[in-house]
Amino acid sequence: MSGKKPHEDISIEFKEYHTPSSGIFFKASKQLYKQDSPYQKIEVIENEHFGRILLLDGLIQTTEKDEFFYHEMLVHPAFLSHPEPRSVLIIGGGDGGVLKEVLRYPVENVCLVEIDSQVIKVSQEYFPWLSPCLKDERTELVIADGTEFIEQTNKTFDIVCVDSSEPVGPSKSLHEEDFYQNMKRCLNSRSIIVAQTGSPIFHQNSIKLKNRFLKKIFKVVCFYMSPVPTYPGGSWAFVFLSDSVQSLEINGNPPEGLLYFNPDIHRAAFSLPNFFKNELD
Amino acid sequence: MSGKKPHEDISIEFKEYHTPSSGIFFKASKQLYKQDSPYQKIEVIENEHFGRILLLDGLIQTTEKDEFFYHEMLVHPAFLSHPEPRSVLIIGGGDGGVLKEVLRYPVENVCLVEIDSQVIKVSQEYFPWLSPCLKDERTELVIADGTEFIEQTNKTFDIVCVDSSEPVGPSKSLHEEDFYQNMKRCLNSRSIIVAQTGSPIFHQNSIKLKNRFLKKIFKVVCFYMSPVPTYPGGSWAFVFLSDSVQSLEINGNPPEGLLYFNPDIHRAAFSLPNFFKNELD
Repeated sequence: MSGKKPHEDISIEFKEYHTPSSGIFFKASKQLYKQDSPYQKIEVIENEHFGRILLLDGLIQTTEKDEFFYHEMLVHPAFLSHPEPRSVLIIGGGDGGVLKEVLRYPVENVCLVEIDSQVIKVSQEYFPWLSPCLKDERTELVIADGTEFIEQTNKTFDIVCVDSSEPVGPSKSLHEEDFYQNMKRCLNSRSIIVAQTGSPIFHQNSIKLKNRFLKKIFKVVCFYMSPVPTYPGGSWAFVFLSDSVQSLEINGNPPEGLLYFNPDIHRAAFSLPNFFKNELD
Repeated sequence: MSGKKPHEDISIEFKEYHTPSSGIFFKASKQLYKQDSPYQKIEVIENEHFGRILLLDGLIQTTEKDEFFYHEMLVHPAFLSHPEPRSVLIIGGGDGGVLKEVLRYPVENVCLVEIDSQVIKVSQEYFPWLSPCLKDERTELVIADGTEFIEQTNKTFDIVCVDSSEPVGPSKSLHEEDFYQNMKRCLNSRSIIVAQTGSPIFHQNSIKLKNRFLKKIFKVVCFYMSPVPTYPGGSWAFVFLSDSVQSLEINGNPPEGLLYFNPDIHRAAFSLPNFFKNELD
């Protein structure tokens, strides 16, 4: 009777609660990684349908099968609207999915600021899209707290993508007013910020509060929505922020080969259902 | 030691598998109903967040909390496009959610054809929106097989809503070519049919096949999408069919008080992501 080898086939059930009485479950055929970093519990499991799944503190961050919904929709709306994006800042996003989408464009430099170097290492090993992105000479990797980075940097960026995890744990400050206020330091007159803002179904209060303080800071504050099958409720909300570029302005072309995004989707994503519009009034 | 009383508080976990290795779970604080009808297993459970949930053969049909996503999006796109809908046929929909949305309009008559009278009885008891709809003098309730009804009726309808369950069990024939071919008998020159067509994420093959045969039968075949948080993948696909009315034609106004639908959402819903468009080519 021998013990289990690492990476041996298993059948563990992972559950993520979306409310105290409901959620999503996955059977893992393999647990590929499980370790606490100084910031959070990092896990990689393998599921028959969704492939590899990255969990931080038990919450699904990305899956091989459906990562494109979230990553395309965090990146391409800003790039379609910006007339000439050259310098890009990604806050968070250590799994590399946002970076992969950004590098589809002829940008000059992309700075990825991730607080947890362990997330980068794990993603490099288990998520095949990250390693080539890190080797791209336009990529600069900074291991730092995103809030401190924007307080200290002297650079400005055409597009900033805030790919935070939920407002618990290390990402908490990335959801607060000060963070967005300080971000003005890193912007030029045509800059666009995009950020994930949680579930339009389960996180309505936090979206409502965020909308209120963002309107004090930016002239253009436009929320948009997209399906993300493995996130709570299957839909996710994002916000497009700028002082000069309107969200429905189309100044660019999407790159070839996208699985989700196209210019019709861009316009459609900013059309909000009544219950969501009512939250923003 | 006494046995459990009916409707006693419980804490059972209900799971719906969306793939063989993943799905959604709910804790039921009460099991309000559980019985096999001649057609299917009917259950009503109560969940703290979603309220009452109707399950047929273990699959979630509707929940109190999020029913509006599906029901509004099955009904209002057709009504916004049709210039003057007077007579409406609902195939399936025994829970009454579609009927509720249809009766918001000044229609003259609505015929609801449900195969399973037990679904009607259960919904009348547990889903508060159904009973007033059945009392509405414009409503005619027919307990019959939808496929047989359309083969035999002499009536025609301005709008037909196909609110089937999945293509297993009693709804199987409502997903087949013959059903749509025969439906031409019930249409006039300006009729619109709308039908749920499954998950754009998990049921791509069935959507592909359906698109192929529908294109042989109807001049206008336009798929659209909407979030439905408690359905597999959190997004659902629908199809808009007509021989004369274009899906983006707007001839009417949506009624007051909708939680999801508005004219912007109408246009947005028909903007399909690349992966879905590719399935339809």
